[in-house]
Amino acid sequence: MRHATDPLITLTTDFGTSSPYVAAMKGVILSRCPATRLIDLSHEIGHQNILHAAQFLRDAIPWFSPGTIHLVVIDPGVGTTRLPLCIEINQQRILCPDNGLWTLIQTDTEPAVYHLENNRYQLPIVSNVFHGRDIFAPAAAALAGGIKPEQLGPRLNHWQTISLPNPRIEGSTIHGEVVFIDHFGNLITNIPSSMLPASINKVQIGARTVARHVISYGHVEPNEIVSLISSNGHLEIAQAQGDAAHALVVTVGEPVSVN
Amino acid sequence: MRHATDPLITLTTDFGTSSPYVAAMKGVILSRCPATRLIDLSHEIGHQNILHAAQFLRDAIPWFSPGTIHLVVIDPGVGTTRLPLCIEINQQRILCPDNGLWTLIQTDTEPAVYHLENNRYQLPIVSNVFHGRDIFAPAAAALAGGIKPEQLGPRLNHWQTISLPNPRIEGSTIHGEVVFIDHFGNLITNIPSSMLPASINKVQIGARTVARHVISYGHVEPNEIVSLISSNGHLEIAQAQGDAAHALVVTVGEPVSVN
Amino acid sequence: MRHATDPLITLTTDFGTSSPYVAAMKGVILSRCPATRLIDLSHEIGHQNILHAAQFLRDAIPWFSPGTIHLVVIDPGVGTTRLPLCIEINQQRILCPDNGLWTLIQTDTEPAVYHLENNRYQLPIVSNVFHGRDIFAPAAAALAGGIKPEQLGPRLNHWQTISLPNPRIEGSTIHGEVVFIDHFGNLITNIPSSMLPASINKVQIGARTVARHVISYGHVEPNEIVSLISSNGHLEIAQAQGDAAHALVVTVGEPVSVN
Repeated sequence: MRHATDPLITLTTDFGTSSPYVAAMKGVILSRCPATRLIDLSHEIGHQNILHAAQFLRDAIPWFSPGTIHLVVIDPGVGTTRLPLCIEINQQRILCPDNGLWTLIQTDTEPAVYHLENNRYQLPIVSNVFHGRDIFAPAAAALAGGIKPEQLGPRLNHWQTISLPNPRIEGSTIHGEVVFIDHFGNLITNIPSSMLPASINKVQIGARTVARHVISYGHVEPNEIVSLISSNGHLEIAQAQGDAAHALVVTVGEPVSVN
Repeated sequence: MRHATDPLITLTTDFGTSSPYVAAMKGVILSRCPATRLIDLSHEIGHQNILHAAQFLRDAIPWFSPGTIHLVVIDPGVGTTRLPLCIEINQQRILCPDNGLWTLIQTDTEPAVYHLENNRYQLPIVSNVFHGRDIFAPAAAALAGGIKPEQLGPRLNHWQTISLPNPRIEGSTIHGEVVFIDHFGNLITNIPSSMLPASINKVQIGARTVARHVISYGHVEPNEIVSLISSNGHLEIAQAQGDAAHALVVTVGEPVSVN
Repeated sequence: MRHATDPLITLTTDFGTSSPYVAAMKGVILSRCPATRLIDLSHEIGHQNILHAAQFLRDAIPWFSPGTIHLVVIDPGVGTTRLPLCIEINQQRILCPDNGLWTLIQTDTEPAVYHLENNRYQLPIVSNVFHGRDIFAPAAAALAGGIKPEQLGPRLNHWQTISLPNPRIEGSTIHGEVVFIDHFGNLITNIPSSMLPASINKVQIGARTVARHVISYGHVEPNEIVSLISSNGHLEIAQAQGDAAHALVVTVGEPVSVN
């Protein structure tokens, strides 16, 4: 169907929806490119939490098709010298501030990064505090309307990157840590399943030993703390019918070891 | 207009949106059926709360038209032997795990229930912990693209059902209970308006007597606890400009009686 | 593209999404006007908080284009004599209860206000407690389908209005107050930037003096309490990487003064 090609813009922010900020961005986009289909990914990224945003995007963006436009505004540096960017990666486009939040996304090809410098694709007045509305939303609408990234501004050779801590191996022990806590309180670690031994002997989180390693939440006794492989392929620690982060009083950074 | 017939898929989960799970499902659907219009119903169903989901669907689904596809993932049994299902009911289709969450929806005709067994309409790799992304989302996209439910897998004769507790009558007293607490803290009971006497003498919740029966929230004094008929046709207990659940320290299961 | 003209209906409520109320409204709209594109603005307006809704709309609606339909249900007076309205303002249309929530939106032309009296554009049965579903949603679908506002009911000459407190000037001091607290805990005041002196000497909130006036959040030391100009052009008090409302234990109404 012809309209299947209507442009798709996804939205990811730490704005919540009780404030008018997301609504204003939606208005700007739809005013400038009325055919756009808007898809909310999240407005509940942790406040100014770039590592949260980066892991969210790493696990979400690859499921979208080439041509999708992603507007991502987690922007503690708004109004400073940090640049607003357009990134072409895996034939998708991401509009976001230059704070590294897109740099955990896997790609086999070199991304192309542009500085959103051309004020033709910005609002006439750009505030110091809300580039989501004044710079990123009009740039997204421009791309949706057929403008090319290179028309939005010059290509850059340098940009901010971020990384997660790497797990390390000492003897027969893998040392990692909790890097993400999901909505259920499940604790996602930085230990990929490929690093795990064929048979797991013991998983420890802090000083506590996890009861056992299982294949899914459904195989767990109520309140039991177990480990399993998360949907993104990493070691996860969970509590059946419960909230492991709450039960273990654990936050991001908690050490996890596997034998 | 031709595109008015673009397929419609609604999404209902207990995933929240701070985690990348809903975003991944949206990506899978839009990649496989780009013309789909996605409608968020809720991502704030109580964690693994099947009774919450079932009442939500009972009150929401009937307002949609024939042909609508509903993706519902509240799935404490993911990765166990519980089956993934496609249900045809009232000419709508529901994709959900076999835990009974769809079985409060009223229908005059026999629903047709299929097991989502055909791995042609699943992701190439199916995880043990996220069938929303790996099985239900691709099945929804397949239906949206014109695949028939019977192509997704064999028809079943048995499935899980759930039910709400029934109110009972003793002498001139109706005994029911709170079965749902809404976003305002209003307490929805299992007592249908059809069961109520023409003139209500007294409503009790636990040991407390409700001030009076009114026709709407707007007729209530501030902080007064009243009863009224909810928008789904059941006896409801509410506090004007307040939160009855909080004010009365009440949760689901609290006894309610009417004279 | 032809389908760029598909009608657009935005949704703003205080319903949250854990209850089936928003879902039911979406079903009613899509059943009656299948071509509608639905855009969620917010379901997290404070419970029955008309001033919150009014400021939200004032800052969000102007970014949308002529022809957009806005369904807004913050409705403490549902089921009383308060009228359901359709307002034409700036060539957009707002469907909402008559409680003033739309009256902070700036306009240069006289709005046209209609009473949604014609039951042809209501559900066959109208409950006393949920006009969002029974009156406002079908009216929005009717407008989306080409019905004119004057077909929905008679034009009115009077309606409820609300206003924010005005700042006042005493000598060289501006006295205002906090009128909105956003998702980040930033404190938005009623003092417009146009009223501020060219050089700000001192900003006080309650008895506390703000550290300094900056141009954006990015220029602030961690935990420092500063003032700046908000994205809606008013004096704002914020804490870098923090939550000013929480840090200062402040709520709406807190006095703010500027020298």
